[in-house]
Amino acid sequence: MKYVIGLDYGTDSARALVVNAENGAIIASAVRNYPRWSEGNYCNPSINQYRQHPQDYIDVLEATVKEALSQCPEGTAGRIAGIAFDTTGSTPAFTDATGTPLALLPEFAENPNAMFVLWKDHTAVKEAAEINKLCKRWDIDYAAYEGGIYSSEWFWAKALHVLREDAAVREKAYSIVEYCEWLPALITGVKTAKDIVRSRCANGHKAMWHESWGGLPGEAFLTELDPLLKGFRDRLFEKTETADKPVGNLSPEWASRLGLSTNVVVAGGAFDCHMGAVGAGITPNTLVRIIGTSTCDVMVASYDEIGDKLIKGICGQVDGSVIPGMIGLEAGQSGFGDIYAWFRRVLEFPLKKILAETAIVDEPTKAKLIDEACKRIIPALTEEAEKIPLTESAIIATDWMNGRRTPDANQLLTGTIDGLTLGSAAPHIFRALVEATAFGSLAIVERFIDEGLRIDNVTGIGGIALKSPFVMQTLSDVLNRPIKICKTDQACALGAAMFAATAAGIYPKVEDAQKAMTSGFAKEYTPNEENAKIYREMYGKYVRLGKFTEERTVEH
Amino acid sequence: MKYVIGLDYGTDSARALVVNAENGAIIASAVRNYPRWSEGNYCNPSINQYRQHPQDYIDVLEATVKEALSQCPEGTAGRIAGIAFDTTGSTPAFTDATGTPLALLPEFAENPNAMFVLWKDHTAVKEAAEINKLCKRWDIDYAAYEGGIYSSEWFWAKALHVLREDAAVREKAYSIVEYCEWLPALITGVKTAKDIVRSRCANGHKAMWHESWGGLPGEAFLTELDPLLKGFRDRLFEKTETADKPVGNLSPEWASRLGLSTNVVVAGGAFDCHMGAVGAGITPNTLVRIIGTSTCDVMVASYDEIGDKLIKGICGQVDGSVIPGMIGLEAGQSGFGDIYAWFRRVLEFPLKKILAETAIVDEPTKAKLIDEACKRIIPALTEEAEKIPLTESAIIATDWMNGRRTPDANQLLTGTIDGLTLGSAAPHIFRALVEATAFGSLAIVERFIDEGLRIDNVTGIGGIALKSPFVMQTLSDVLNRPIKICKTDQACALGAAMFAATAAGIYPKVEDAQKAMTSGFAKEYTPNEENAKIYREMYGKYVRLGKFTEERTVEH
Repeated sequence: MKYVIGLDYGTDSARALVVNAENGAIIASAVRNYPRWSEGNYCNPSINQYRQHPQDYIDVLEATVKEALSQCPEGTAGRIAGIAFDTTGSTPAFTDATGTPLALLPEFAENPNAMFVLWKDHTAVKEAAEINKLCKRWDIDYAAYEGGIYSSEWFWAKALHVLREDAAVREKAYSIVEYCEWLPALITGVKTAKDIVRSRCANGHKAMWHESWGGLPGEAFLTELDPLLKGFRDRLFEKTETADKPVGNLSPEWASRLGLSTNVVVAGGAFDCHMGAVGAGITPNTLVRIIGTSTCDVMVASYDEIGDKLIKGICGQVDGSVIPGMIGLEAGQSGFGDIYAWFRRVLEFPLKKILAETAIVDEPTKAKLIDEACKRIIPALTEEAEKIPLTESAIIATDWMNGRRTPDANQLLTGTIDGLTLGSAAPHIFRALVEATAFGSLAIVERFIDEGLRIDNVTGIGGIALKSPFVMQTLSDVLNRPIKICKTDQACALGAAMFAATAAGIYPKVEDAQKAMTSGFAKEYTPNEENAKIYREMYGKYVRLGKFTEERTVEH
Repeated sequence: MKYVIGLDYGTDSARALVVNAENGAIIASAVRNYPRWSEGNYCNPSINQYRQHPQDYIDVLEATVKEALSQCPEGTAGRIAGIAFDTTGSTPAFTDATGTPLALLPEFAENPNAMFVLWKDHTAVKEAAEINKLCKRWDIDYAAYEGGIYSSEWFWAKALHVLREDAAVREKAYSIVEYCEWLPALITGVKTAKDIVRSRCANGHKAMWHESWGGLPGEAFLTELDPLLKGFRDRLFEKTETADKPVGNLSPEWASRLGLSTNVVVAGGAFDCHMGAVGAGITPNTLVRIIGTSTCDVMVASYDEIGDKLIKGICGQVDGSVIPGMIGLEAGQSGFGDIYAWFRRVLEFPLKKILAETAIVDEPTKAKLIDEACKRIIPALTEEAEKIPLTESAIIATDWMNGRRTPDANQLLTGTIDGLTLGSAAPHIFRALVEATAFGSLAIVERFIDEGLRIDNVTGIGGIALKSPFVMQTLSDVLNRPIKICKTDQACALGAAMFAATAAGIYPKVEDAQKAMTSGFAKEYTPNEENAKIYREMYGKYVRLGKFTEERTVEH
């Protein structure tokens, strides 16, 4: 019996899963919040600055692996064959020549610019705009495989922004590492930046790496962007690897720190959603949607199916970013559950602003009342929205309150609610917002299809997929397709376990690990035909409202 | 020293004011709710059926006049020179040949179709559509002076609807009377329907009465509309009178019932907003806005100024409907305070639906908490909205949640909120709604100006004008004009008192009564130049958003 460890490093916390490599059974799991992050250190939300200290990652790594192992039957540790990480991204940090993130050096320990720049950090908006401008006038459009529009959330924009901001970091910076590359490098004892195995997923999707132009963008492009980038390209890397390949074995130091042997194989790293799609059983012609605050929509296609064709308006297409040997395609909505949470915050006003000031009850009672009511807002809206006959749904909203990621990224877009009357109550508006997020999903599905891909199955994972039957049924009705929901609520970590098992040689290919280790499905939503018909018509109105919003945004 | 009584008959209650006719000082006042109406009798809100029993009007007439007189120094009753009524409208009822509303006959006492059909009753939507269709194909457009679109809220639509609905009423109906005509007829002892003095204001604005086509629409038109209308035209009237003319003296019966002498002169009746505009001191080139749940916007212009020109897209233009000898022009917004109340209701959800179910506090405490918090919503939103820098106002809304009355009536329009982000909080939305109602006001002002009228002054009366400095300052900034607020909160009843004084011969003309009896102004809002500039640009976006809404409504 062999086991593997799947490690899932999210925005707020990290999870370690000990998984039976033969059947995918989860033997043990442990979760830890990042300690410095959870205190709000190094962040400045007013300018969207979000930084994470590498020591946070080290702390939770030891704690979660040890805790998970402690729950396992004796002897399990000795049977761990492999470890793999998935992480958020693009989350890069500057390193010194040894590949050590600068914040781990004493003189940089408190410098946010020496830390990992979290995926959702938007401090590099200006740099992203410069990259886009340069891409358009360069002979090669280096952003072509990343949806054609480079984002402030990505590698080069962030790196350039930090270099411009911080003379001390500029002085010391030797290389740059992505979060999902650094953790495998760390525990395999990599001693120089050049030896870090580079992630196909991270760099193909976010660092403009592509084989056709020889890897990273050319030195001339980078120094034209800013002479500050001079030399980085040579010191970075030429090759990237898919995450099924081992990057090494556990170093003696880390074998001892984790209570494992140096025989444990460490797989390459990749982004959480991409490994999550693998954990959810992605195959060609299956759309896997990770549905939470936002969505990440992943497909894979054989080279035979799409060849060199650029799929218009999605986030990126990278050979091997999901399943090695296939093109991984990424799309997604900037806001999904976040839009419901926004409406919840709007409705919290009478509780958090008004009830909070009452003198009718004492402070502890007040706090309890407010807390209880805030938590009930979305469940109560859902209960009431479900009762509204679909034929009464006259409100049409767009789902762009956080901009639009796909199809056709435009972060300047904003949300609209149209068709309001004096009879529109909170549940009517909530229902329209749920429908709006489903229409946004349909827009992505339609784009994939218009671009020549075939979708036979839709699979949902993530918080909302598991917890909101109302939202998922609406989504099924709007897409007019069945949606299967994975049994596991740990698809990302399970996906990482599949990569660990493949890297350890238990399976020849990731697809074999998927078959053996699948969690199966908990539920399937099937579309209501009547509703689907009504939604088809409402979708036309959504498209039209969106067109207005886009035109007004462009002209502004 | 002479006194007059101004009687203001609103939707829910009636007020009696005893006013010093020489200086406009209010000596006494009394208010009463309509007793049957306040119990919800004869109404069916689900089909927008709103009927009022004539006995309600009689009951409150006696009660308010007696109560007001009882507060006055001894001898006041003997010095009352005149009485005038303003009422809601169009609020018609069928009468028998004696001019008695049918519901006062024992066999019709409980029949809603025999009662006054209140202004906001919308049961005649179908009939209004038929009238509009017929007007368009007739050689005369009888709706021309009523804004070109006949409404279900008006005289003929309501009369036809009731005739079609109710065989008993059909059988007995001899004539039709407007609320504001019937009360003067009642207390002057009119004995036949033909002798009722007809209101220029009511019939010019709502019954398609116009001198140019010889009064009411022709018999051929009416019978083409429906043969059920046959004969009414002849039994109704040819002439209408302005409200400054006496319709008679108090009858012995009513002199005794009210404790007054038969020397008291009774003036003609008119609609509340029109007399309110007079009470607010309307003159040519002054726009008087009655601002409450909706707005009524009134202007007067000399015949020399506008001649026969039709002012496009307003509610109506009638010679003498406001000040005798001048053209009265009426416009208005279908929703103003109602739009803020709508947003309040949306925000009440967490209180009335969620907090209402808590077990943390007992029922009476809960009820107190909910009541207190609901009442605080608009004040708290106002406090927070005022703090938002105008440059942060990125949300644009339209004010059409209750359709649009003017400019260019379209009751099918709905409201839109555009420019929402995840950072849009309840006060941002509220602020946008306040701005939307102000933009809707600007659209009316611009229409008057585009149509060749000059506006030198804007005067506000009504609940919101007196009670919401935030709304009024925003309105002043958006209009980029000063707005004066009348000192009196009883402008309508004061206006009625001015008509009473004129009819009683104390003043030769209404304008003289206005000068002598004015309440003066309590406050003047002046526009902030910086804000006005920003709002000018935002108004362009409002117009554009509205254009989208209109196009989508038309195509639907």
